[in-house]
Amino acid sequence: MLKRMCAVSVVLAGWAVLIPFSGGQSSPRARDLGVPFDGMPGPLNAITDVKGIEVGHTTLISGDGALKVGTGPVRTGVTAVFPRGKESSDSVFAGWFTLNGNGEMTGTTWVEESGFLEGPVMITNTHSVGVVRDAVIAWRLKHGGPDKDGYSWSLPVVAETWDGDLNDVNGFHVKPEDVFHALDSAHGGPVEEGSVGGGTGMICNEFKGGIGTASRVLDAKHGGYTVGVLVQCNYGQRDQLRIAGVPVGREIGGAKVWDNDVGSIIVIVATDAPLIPTQLKRVAKRVSLGLGRDGSYSGDGSGDIFIAFSTANAGAALASQASQITMLPNDRINPVFLATVQATEEAVINAMVAAKTMTGVNGRTVVALPHDRLREVLQKYNRLVK
Amino acid sequence: MLKRMCAVSVVLAGWAVLIPFSGGQSSPRARDLGVPFDGMPGPLNAITDVKGIEVGHTTLISGDGALKVGTGPVRTGVTAVFPRGKESSDSVFAGWFTLNGNGEMTGTTWVEESGFLEGPVMITNTHSVGVVRDAVIAWRLKHGGPDKDGYSWSLPVVAETWDGDLNDVNGFHVKPEDVFHALDSAHGGPVEEGSVGGGTGMICNEFKGGIGTASRVLDAKHGGYTVGVLVQCNYGQRDQLRIAGVPVGREIGGAKVWDNDVGSIIVIVATDAPLIPTQLKRVAKRVSLGLGRDGSYSGDGSGDIFIAFSTANAGAALASQASQITMLPNDRINPVFLATVQATEEAVINAMVAAKTMTGVNGRTVVALPHDRLREVLQKYNRLVK
Amino acid sequence: MLKRMCAVSVVLAGWAVLIPFSGGQSSPRARDLGVPFDGMPGPLNAITDVKGIEVGHTTLISGDGALKVGTGPVRTGVTAVFPRGKESSDSVFAGWFTLNGNGEMTGTTWVEESGFLEGPVMITNTHSVGVVRDAVIAWRLKHGGPDKDGYSWSLPVVAETWDGDLNDVNGFHVKPEDVFHALDSAHGGPVEEGSVGGGTGMICNEFKGGIGTASRVLDAKHGGYTVGVLVQCNYGQRDQLRIAGVPVGREIGGAKVWDNDVGSIIVIVATDAPLIPTQLKRVAKRVSLGLGRDGSYSGDGSGDIFIAFSTANAGAALASQASQITMLPNDRINPVFLATVQATEEAVINAMVAAKTMTGVNGRTVVALPHDRLREVLQKYNRLVK
Amino acid sequence: MLKRMCAVSVVLAGWAVLIPFSGGQSSPRARDLGVPFDGMPGPLNAITDVKGIEVGHTTLISGDGALKVGTGPVRTGVTAVFPRGKESSDSVFAGWFTLNGNGEMTGTTWVEESGFLEGPVMITNTHSVGVVRDAVIAWRLKHGGPDKDGYSWSLPVVAETWDGDLNDVNGFHVKPEDVFHALDSAHGGPVEEGSVGGGTGMICNEFKGGIGTASRVLDAKHGGYTVGVLVQCNYGQRDQLRIAGVPVGREIGGAKVWDNDVGSIIVIVATDAPLIPTQLKRVAKRVSLGLGRDGSYSGDGSGDIFIAFSTANAGAALASQASQITMLPNDRINPVFLATVQATEEAVINAMVAAKTMTGVNGRTVVALPHDRLREVLQKYNRLVK
Repeated sequence: MLKRMCAVSVVLAGWAVLIPFSGGQSSPRARDLGVPFDGMPGPLNAITDVKGIEVGHTTLISGDGALKVGTGPVRTGVTAVFPRGKESSDSVFAGWFTLNGNGEMTGTTWVEESGFLEGPVMITNTHSVGVVRDAVIAWRLKHGGPDKDGYSWSLPVVAETWDGDLNDVNGFHVKPEDVFHALDSAHGGPVEEGSVGGGTGMICNEFKGGIGTASRVLDAKHGGYTVGVLVQCNYGQRDQLRIAGVPVGREIGGAKVWDNDVGSIIVIVATDAPLIPTQLKRVAKRVSLGLGRDGSYSGDGSGDIFIAFSTANAGAALASQASQITMLPNDRINPVFLATVQATEEAVINAMVAAKTMTGVNGRTVVALPHDRLREVLQKYNRLVK
Repeated sequence: MLKRMCAVSVVLAGWAVLIPFSGGQSSPRARDLGVPFDGMPGPLNAITDVKGIEVGHTTLISGDGALKVGTGPVRTGVTAVFPRGKESSDSVFAGWFTLNGNGEMTGTTWVEESGFLEGPVMITNTHSVGVVRDAVIAWRLKHGGPDKDGYSWSLPVVAETWDGDLNDVNGFHVKPEDVFHALDSAHGGPVEEGSVGGGTGMICNEFKGGIGTASRVLDAKHGGYTVGVLVQCNYGQRDQLRIAGVPVGREIGGAKVWDNDVGSIIVIVATDAPLIPTQLKRVAKRVSLGLGRDGSYSGDGSGDIFIAFSTANAGAALASQASQITMLPNDRINPVFLATVQATEEAVINAMVAAKTMTGVNGRTVVALPHDRLREVLQKYNRLVK
Repeated sequence: MLKRMCAVSVVLAGWAVLIPFSGGQSSPRARDLGVPFDGMPGPLNAITDVKGIEVGHTTLISGDGALKVGTGPVRTGVTAVFPRGKESSDSVFAGWFTLNGNGEMTGTTWVEESGFLEGPVMITNTHSVGVVRDAVIAWRLKHGGPDKDGYSWSLPVVAETWDGDLNDVNGFHVKPEDVFHALDSAHGGPVEEGSVGGGTGMICNEFKGGIGTASRVLDAKHGGYTVGVLVQCNYGQRDQLRIAGVPVGREIGGAKVWDNDVGSIIVIVATDAPLIPTQLKRVAKRVSLGLGRDGSYSGDGSGDIFIAFSTANAGAALASQASQITMLPNDRINPVFLATVQATEEAVINAMVAAKTMTGVNGRTVVALPHDRLREVLQKYNRLVK
Repeated sequence: MLKRMCAVSVVLAGWAVLIPFSGGQSSPRARDLGVPFDGMPGPLNAITDVKGIEVGHTTLISGDGALKVGTGPVRTGVTAVFPRGKESSDSVFAGWFTLNGNGEMTGTTWVEESGFLEGPVMITNTHSVGVVRDAVIAWRLKHGGPDKDGYSWSLPVVAETWDGDLNDVNGFHVKPEDVFHALDSAHGGPVEEGSVGGGTGMICNEFKGGIGTASRVLDAKHGGYTVGVLVQCNYGQRDQLRIAGVPVGREIGGAKVWDNDVGSIIVIVATDAPLIPTQLKRVAKRVSLGLGRDGSYSGDGSGDIFIAFSTANAGAALASQASQITMLPNDRINPVFLATVQATEEAVINAMVAAKTMTGVNGRTVVALPHDRLREVLQKYNRLVK
């Protein structure tokens, strides 16, 4: 049986080997464990601190034991991020950047050309990009209908990372209704982290990975803007992992999952700062620096693809003639850059802190980052926030 | 009933309003009508003149009359182009370029990063990119199996143009089995042109468009290499159309299909010249110049996306350590550039010459380029080859 | 003696072998000869039809006979194009594109990053890019002074094409005062074409080339915007040359200058349409299509580099906080694209029509496009406008 | 008087306020102070560990006190890096990347197009890029002569960072003979670091910056290749500075030089691994991750521009027909990526450790990173290598 779990689902009794995720904000986050981060987070320390953003997850977990392609075990899902909420069909200015392109983010050719992101950003597993893409179009047809030319978000943005180490990725378990569910259930407020949605079966720095988020709020003198980041993290080697600059991965050590850096990370950066597309590409590039702080070297196997958008300038894509838009000057953009680096650095760690140990195909178990050991190592290097 | 027509299918009796395509080489091509083109074509004047290339089409035509979403009329399909034939899982060096990005070509982020194209290039309609993408993975799993890491052409290259003017594009009529058929039926030799495969419902310069192909063979002193081009053309305004430099579109005139240049063109360039990825990107850029010769100005609504690959250097992607590859010096590349321009210029015209008048959704009819009028106009401007 | 000729300079008496240029508008232009072009030009059919633009040339012609490096013969110069006139230090939104990068356009990394062009666009010969670049900074220091941070157009945009076939390019004959002269003498109104300024020693399609310009004015319903193009053309093989679609190069034939397509073309596109940087990059890409119409295949040796800017949104670069800018919607941009293609197509031909036969180093003579033969060939193909 | 100091020059007696640089390797480097870095450096821990690379500096220091434009004080210079040594005119495969483009690196358009770097990479101050560029051409004409087409490294690669805080940058003090000196004096072996060459007047993380270098040698199982990095660092805010993950900048604190992140960093990555141009662009991108480790957020004012080249494949640019080149498979490239990140991280710190306190225009003093305080802070965070 395939259990389609949603963002507010309860863990099934009887799945002894799995604790797929806990209830979001009630679990400790990286800051709660005493990890020091720079900058001032928003109220939720989540991408949803940027007003209007809604996030929905569909989490698919079923079966265990030996891999039987098409049957399971299933450890996958899909995540939807709406820049202006699911009721809006208005576009946002956007830019994207690839640090390492061993991955897919559909729709980026049009983002690059037009400077706009139409519709949501979706994240799923590598082999489900297609079904998610077409389902986004179908969802829009059901909910918003095509425009006068018949278009209906015809070039959706769908990204992926590879969960085949835990999930029956060749079984194509994500179905259109799972996509609809993620879209329909998108909401503001706290964002579930860890092994949920597209992040369900992901691995990060050879610990359990998945979805993580964080935000920063700028000082009033810098405009008071909010920057939010959401990651689906599935990259990295343990011995490279730095947390708050501390070589946590090397200190914890332990069995290696990979011989090589074969994972990926998708990063979505949202802001209400009024940035135009060229500026948003610049913001997307800064994600690299946040990953650098966490120790990434972005291996050949990584699909490290980032997209940034601004929720300012509502209606800019709908204008029928020359219209007024608002633009932050380039020489006022530094606080946005710095916030992006800081929120990226934290969102990755939040993903690992939230994710629980998971067992998947053929009984392979990927352990969670042990909270107590993390605290011990930070203490050793005098970086633990008491 | 939905009739899935393949590359060797026969026209259904009783479809009075449709002559979906004729039998490839038996129809006249642009040269046969006296259109002058520069350069020396290969034996087939087709992309398949590049050794090893195989092309397969699935053509879906059914229904007529009023649009009923999900039912039809259906005027669509899918085309598969294998660089090394469907039996090979070896990659080719590749590069891509976007002239105008109002379109999709999945997998290009990895092409750009790795310099390799894995698997076939697929072309379909805008709303079927997803199903085609995932089906390519599934096909490979059936035929080739994943590699040791579980990958299986996990980032397929799938491009599209919009056929919603003739086809029930929101009905999602392309199914996985249609994709499998295009892949399984791929073959060398003559390539069907016109309203076939992905090109079935396409419109070009406000005449009926679709699939077209052409090739050039270089002089022995330039290496004797072959360059082949295949286009799925769906772009352009009639009054801009130039054929062999002659303002054919304006001369023929007639009812306009579009108010604006809303179409697209996907172009695949193949060569056996030993080019590395940076060089293939350069080749892909030259497609623009061929389109310029035909009068395109690449409107905002166009997805003008091009990919070029080289069939030389077999095995380069499979090497386990530093290996020898062959590279044409940059200062020997001009004949390849010129051949690309010339073959692109011709392939577009071949598509229009091959396509027959088609009636689609809501009885909309798009007329074929009239061969006799084309000849008359060329004659008027002293450009007809007798 | 080195004669530094300016935009209104008179040809030195006694230079019997040279007729370096005639007086601009008094010479026939391509339209005057009956070449058909599409679209509606502005009053001057020049880049200066875009309000505020000023163009200055310094033309350096001296010596003849055998090459003596450092002495001559000299056939070179420098051209300055100010987006808002030489009195303004305000920037413009800009974007750039490279069709083939065997050339230099300094400052483009900052154009790409910031979306702004600061200062003028300069064009000169390949080996004088450096002196022109630093001299632009020095000129600004003299005239405008640095800003509060000490900057003074510190990243000038300077492009080049190669004039070593006629000019003692290794003699470095362009001096800072020549640059100052081009800047100081910049003016609105008619633009000298042909063998002037940076274009002095250039060759185009194996005829004499140089500077050319053209413009288009959009219909009021499309906003009534103006698009102006200025080229320094130095590219192409005669047998590829098409004028108004007619194979003029092949028809005229004659001695070849080059074995290969080794030249280059720099193109500046200006408009008053309110475009943001992403849109201006799109405009710059359309130059390729205009060159395609003229028959270019953009050889390996070509530096085909284009920059587009908008004179709208004055003050956008000076804002100290979020400010209002005007943006044309993407789906209203097509007329600007088409105008760019058309004006590029014409500007190249204008350059060739204006340029006179020139003899340079070692007595090498490059002939002008013969006006009478051009008319005969157009007549032969029924394309001559009577 | 203007003293042109070279890489082996001796400090002038009587310049009491200046200690421009010490004798290279005799000064402690970051490792000598107990900073922990990952990976195995080469014998010199310098870019010159890559066989064939030669580095030359010209250091210009003169005057003190109030700024008098054109007179001084002078704190600037030029650095030359030859990929194959100054006697070779053979090109190398190369790729480049811009993290933030508020800077100049000429010649990159041709690097991007051709995949080759011709000639040396030069680094100087912002306002001297032009003179350096043309002087490289002139130097080649003196030493190597033009090729048969008259070309002579006609598109030199010259980068810059801004030294106007210490140097009379508007005085244009770098002259052609200074460029020749840097080129002529280039040599293998130890590389002088700190306030030398192009790095003379630079500031990094609000400490004195300049030239730094480091290298890594891969394990034999990874090919035994060497990766070398050379930086001219002039970026960053003190409170962002991390050394070995420790918040050194914040701990040391002190007077701020800048209100904002206005600096820049140029990075050259060299390797003997046989990489093709697409792969070298990937290597160049990894520099970002090394800067991320050091705390950079790459501000709007930064010109963070990186170039990577491979000394393998000698002769590839000289081939007259299709030739054999060697290519490392993509899936063997990770150790090169990691080495690039590590060597970048260290080279920046080496630059700061080597640079001595300097006083420049208007008596402005920029202090060196205090070695003792650095050690204390590392000790505090349990990161000091005893």
